[in-house]
Amino acid sequence: MVSRANEEHRLETLRHSAAHIMAQAVQCLFPEVKFGIGPAIEDGFYYDFDLPRALTPDDLPVIEKEMKEITAQNLPFIREDVAKEEARRLFADQVYKSELLEELPDKQVSLYRQGSFVDLCRGPHVDSTGELKAFKLTHIAGAYWRGDEKRPMLQRVYGVAFETEAELEDYLFRLAEANKRDHRKLGRELDLFSIHEVAGPGLVHWHPKGAVIRHLIEDLWEEEHQKRGYEIVYTPHIAKLSLWKTSGHWDFYRENLYPPTDIEGQEYIIKPMNCLGHILIYKTQLRSYRRLPLRYAEMGTVYRYERSGVLHGLARVRGFTQDDAHIFCRPDQIEDEVGEVLELAQFMMNVFGFKEYQLFLSTRPEKYAGTIEIWDKATESLRKVLETRQLIYKIDPGEGVFYGPKIDIKLKDTLGRSWQGPTIQVDFNLPQRFNVSYIDRDGSEQLAVMIHRTVLGSMERFLACLVEHYGGNFPVWLSPIQVTIIPIADRHLDYARAAATELKKEHIRIEVDDRSERMNLKIREAQLNKVPFMVIVGDRELKTGTISIRLKSGEDLGSMSLLEFKEKVKTTIDNKL
Amino acid sequence: MVSRANEEHRLETLRHSAAHIMAQAVQCLFPEVKFGIGPAIEDGFYYDFDLPRALTPDDLPVIEKEMKEITAQNLPFIREDVAKEEARRLFADQVYKSELLEELPDKQVSLYRQGSFVDLCRGPHVDSTGELKAFKLTHIAGAYWRGDEKRPMLQRVYGVAFETEAELEDYLFRLAEANKRDHRKLGRELDLFSIHEVAGPGLVHWHPKGAVIRHLIEDLWEEEHQKRGYEIVYTPHIAKLSLWKTSGHWDFYRENLYPPTDIEGQEYIIKPMNCLGHILIYKTQLRSYRRLPLRYAEMGTVYRYERSGVLHGLARVRGFTQDDAHIFCRPDQIEDEVGEVLELAQFMMNVFGFKEYQLFLSTRPEKYAGTIEIWDKATESLRKVLETRQLIYKIDPGEGVFYGPKIDIKLKDTLGRSWQGPTIQVDFNLPQRFNVSYIDRDGSEQLAVMIHRTVLGSMERFLACLVEHYGGNFPVWLSPIQVTIIPIADRHLDYARAAATELKKEHIRIEVDDRSERMNLKIREAQLNKVPFMVIVGDRELKTGTISIRLKSGEDLGSMSLLEFKEKVKTTIDNKL
Repeated sequence: MVSRANEEHRLETLRHSAAHIMAQAVQCLFPEVKFGIGPAIEDGFYYDFDLPRALTPDDLPVIEKEMKEITAQNLPFIREDVAKEEARRLFADQVYKSELLEELPDKQVSLYRQGSFVDLCRGPHVDSTGELKAFKLTHIAGAYWRGDEKRPMLQRVYGVAFETEAELEDYLFRLAEANKRDHRKLGRELDLFSIHEVAGPGLVHWHPKGAVIRHLIEDLWEEEHQKRGYEIVYTPHIAKLSLWKTSGHWDFYRENLYPPTDIEGQEYIIKPMNCLGHILIYKTQLRSYRRLPLRYAEMGTVYRYERSGVLHGLARVRGFTQDDAHIFCRPDQIEDEVGEVLELAQFMMNVFGFKEYQLFLSTRPEKYAGTIEIWDKATESLRKVLETRQLIYKIDPGEGVFYGPKIDIKLKDTLGRSWQGPTIQVDFNLPQRFNVSYIDRDGSEQLAVMIHRTVLGSMERFLACLVEHYGGNFPVWLSPIQVTIIPIADRHLDYARAAATELKKEHIRIEVDDRSERMNLKIREAQLNKVPFMVIVGDRELKTGTISIRLKSGEDLGSMSLLEFKEKVKTTIDNKL
Repeated sequence: MVSRANEEHRLETLRHSAAHIMAQAVQCLFPEVKFGIGPAIEDGFYYDFDLPRALTPDDLPVIEKEMKEITAQNLPFIREDVAKEEARRLFADQVYKSELLEELPDKQVSLYRQGSFVDLCRGPHVDSTGELKAFKLTHIAGAYWRGDEKRPMLQRVYGVAFETEAELEDYLFRLAEANKRDHRKLGRELDLFSIHEVAGPGLVHWHPKGAVIRHLIEDLWEEEHQKRGYEIVYTPHIAKLSLWKTSGHWDFYRENLYPPTDIEGQEYIIKPMNCLGHILIYKTQLRSYRRLPLRYAEMGTVYRYERSGVLHGLARVRGFTQDDAHIFCRPDQIEDEVGEVLELAQFMMNVFGFKEYQLFLSTRPEKYAGTIEIWDKATESLRKVLETRQLIYKIDPGEGVFYGPKIDIKLKDTLGRSWQGPTIQVDFNLPQRFNVSYIDRDGSEQLAVMIHRTVLGSMERFLACLVEHYGGNFPVWLSPIQVTIIPIADRHLDYARAAATELKKEHIRIEVDDRSERMNLKIREAQLNKVPFMVIVGDRELKTGTISIRLKSGEDLGSMSLLEFKEKVKTTIDNKL
């Protein structure tokens, strides 16, 4: 039996060999090529080339064809160990290879040769080129030599490679599906949100249709939180920097804070977290042990600096709205509270159809506040909750926040990809720094424990996740437009509008396509907009007092009464389908 | 008949004379007093004194008594015109008066004398001290000589004066009432919000009970806006400064902007207004004349710099959430749209029981963007809407925003005081600066018109207004806690909790006072917390399966079934009572 680690090693070797095969193919086509580096990467490989002309996507099939000839020849990969001097002569006209060679400390270096191609390489490789059976070149990108923007720009050709054609097919299908589902693309097509260079990268503007989805999620979120004894609060977006010095954010998290601005001689920053505002509210009164836990919830928009290079649509942004809450409790309440948060998180994941998820317990990072004793205590509480509930989890070493350990949940979407979801953090540190306390049964003052938690993560990332999870085909209850009414001709407009008025009474989100366009065009556009129901009204419907229903899939549900349809849509929405 | 203007002039004269009478009284008590200035102000007067000791509130009745003796003597006010030289001699030991005297350009100056007191004064005054019949000294404050913090601090004594005792009584009653209703005081007592020096002045933290009220208002607001064809959007709180330079805010409004902060070589500011985000969303698509108006609504939190000295509770803050919307429309739609906003504003005022309000049309300010022609056009549209609807309004000259004129509505609360409420601004300028356009019927590109509007103003100021309007006695539908259930003894706790569970099913906001305290104390605390309904359960209720209801006014509604009570509360809430 091949172990998982062996299998991964075998695949990496195969992909590395594929890079060499691609290099050989490119050399056949462009004898003057100068080679950079060509490693295996996740799912495939790349090689950097210095070429006399820019490659275009049209070149990729030509290179692939050349590669297939090389694999058909089943050339052996031959390792040679030679003196550095000999290698120097061999790579004399390969300027990048020569540079790499000079940096090797050894006197002997290893070469790998297949057919006419030879490379400076540590290996290992597969036995012969014929072992590469399933590969595809995917795209071309520019890459500075050694990642240094002062050095020449090379052309990097990417490919993917798998053991079998079936695996490659499966991969390419998922890739195409993922591209189709890309939330940045669908976000534009479905008019959900935009990000504007003139306003600043990573700052999200929610369009009406995206805002409808967000608002529905917020309503559900608030209802569930109120049911579970949370209280909503609102706190400001700026605060004096001194507060963030007391908290430790300035010491431990400075690179993610926005630079301070001066107001009347005081430095202020835009908040990176909601916790301090909640602490200030807690501290406005003496709190009794009888009244704990207090659970403050806020859809709090926070701002954190991220380099513009790492920003990615809604998934990695600079401003985001956390579905945040802070639970102030006694030490003896931690486990119950964390357990209830887990239960709420599971409820939410279920509503949105996430069937699979992974749990991670993140432990003390390199830079941390508080004592090791406190950290151990907090980590132990989290571990205990997970184990009591017999939940399977992985340890994520050093990935805790500076003020405490956490449980992270990663959601698996319909394509099996992971998304950062809920997080639960136990914190003994901030209560100490801000003297967040309560009066215990015996009249003594005790430090409270804070639990920081989100059950969706952030509204921005959660929308990205939902868009890709559903591929833009939101369930009816979340669809920005639930029904498009399509009158066949202008004479059916009044009937269409009357139907719309009736459906709107039930808060069904309706659009009447009143343009003087052909019915088929209107249907196609409603489908592109992924509207769940199309209601067609023409002469026949007018005469029989019915409406005809079509789904976005193209399925024809035939005609029915408006009342019947209304009940059908209402039931679907009420069941969050 | 005395005209309004004459009456006001007469009152001002009386109050000015009252200031002189107070000065005479203080001189009798403190012969070494040095006088600053003593003008009439709204409702009364003050005088600034340099005294050998600090006054305390206990001094005020003593000064009042002295003043009453002076009015009883009915001393005539005598004007004397004298040469400056003579005045100099007269005020030789009055350092502040001497300073004022030197600044007068004339050779002759006028004095007013009553009894032993003489003042450098332009007048006019009433004929004699006996005319002052109704006055009261109210408080003492520090005031730098000439408002300059480098000059000596004088003691300013404030008083109020009216024509008749009845008017004075009425004023003092309203003042006491206003103090009782002060939203800062009630906000603390009812646990609605807090502002923290450590976080920064003018930055509001909404506590759970305040947030309940805000959330209810937001829900109502959203529902009414959706009904009226508005679409909700969300935009970020920071944006590049360059955007605010394009808009003109940087030129015209800089003193209210927060200082910029640098991110990757770009300056960003925290937004003072929501309009630019909405413009960016509008501009993501070509818009057709057929699809206008577009109405984007956002509960948008904005930040504006105000000197810490002018901040006042929730009424004047640095961060506030505008119930904002921007209507993008064609020029031919302005009047309909402004009219509908007025209608919505009236709807809202009605819900919250504001029966009276004043309308103001604010015109071009000194610093403005755009051409006078555009300003005239916009002002004319607003005027037309007001006049078509036969609404009574006043002109507020120069009080428009830099980008356009506006209609302001001032609400009158139950004490007859004015609160800044809804605002509607017509804007031809920002569309020009950002090229906000639409494709007209003939295929040409036309500039859209923007209408900026709020129908509550800001959530912070509106809560301040509501707290004082209702005196903290919120109607049932807005009360953070609607029902307090009071078990008489611990053995009634289960029955109390079962009743709470039943009422919570209807989303009635319940609190069970489960403390082991006496019933009377629990009732008193619920009354202090202004909870509309108290439900008392004891042996009798348990036996008969009923509950006993008491109102916060103390009125006893007797016993009824839980079902009956539930229906009663539900109906009250549904009718927004």
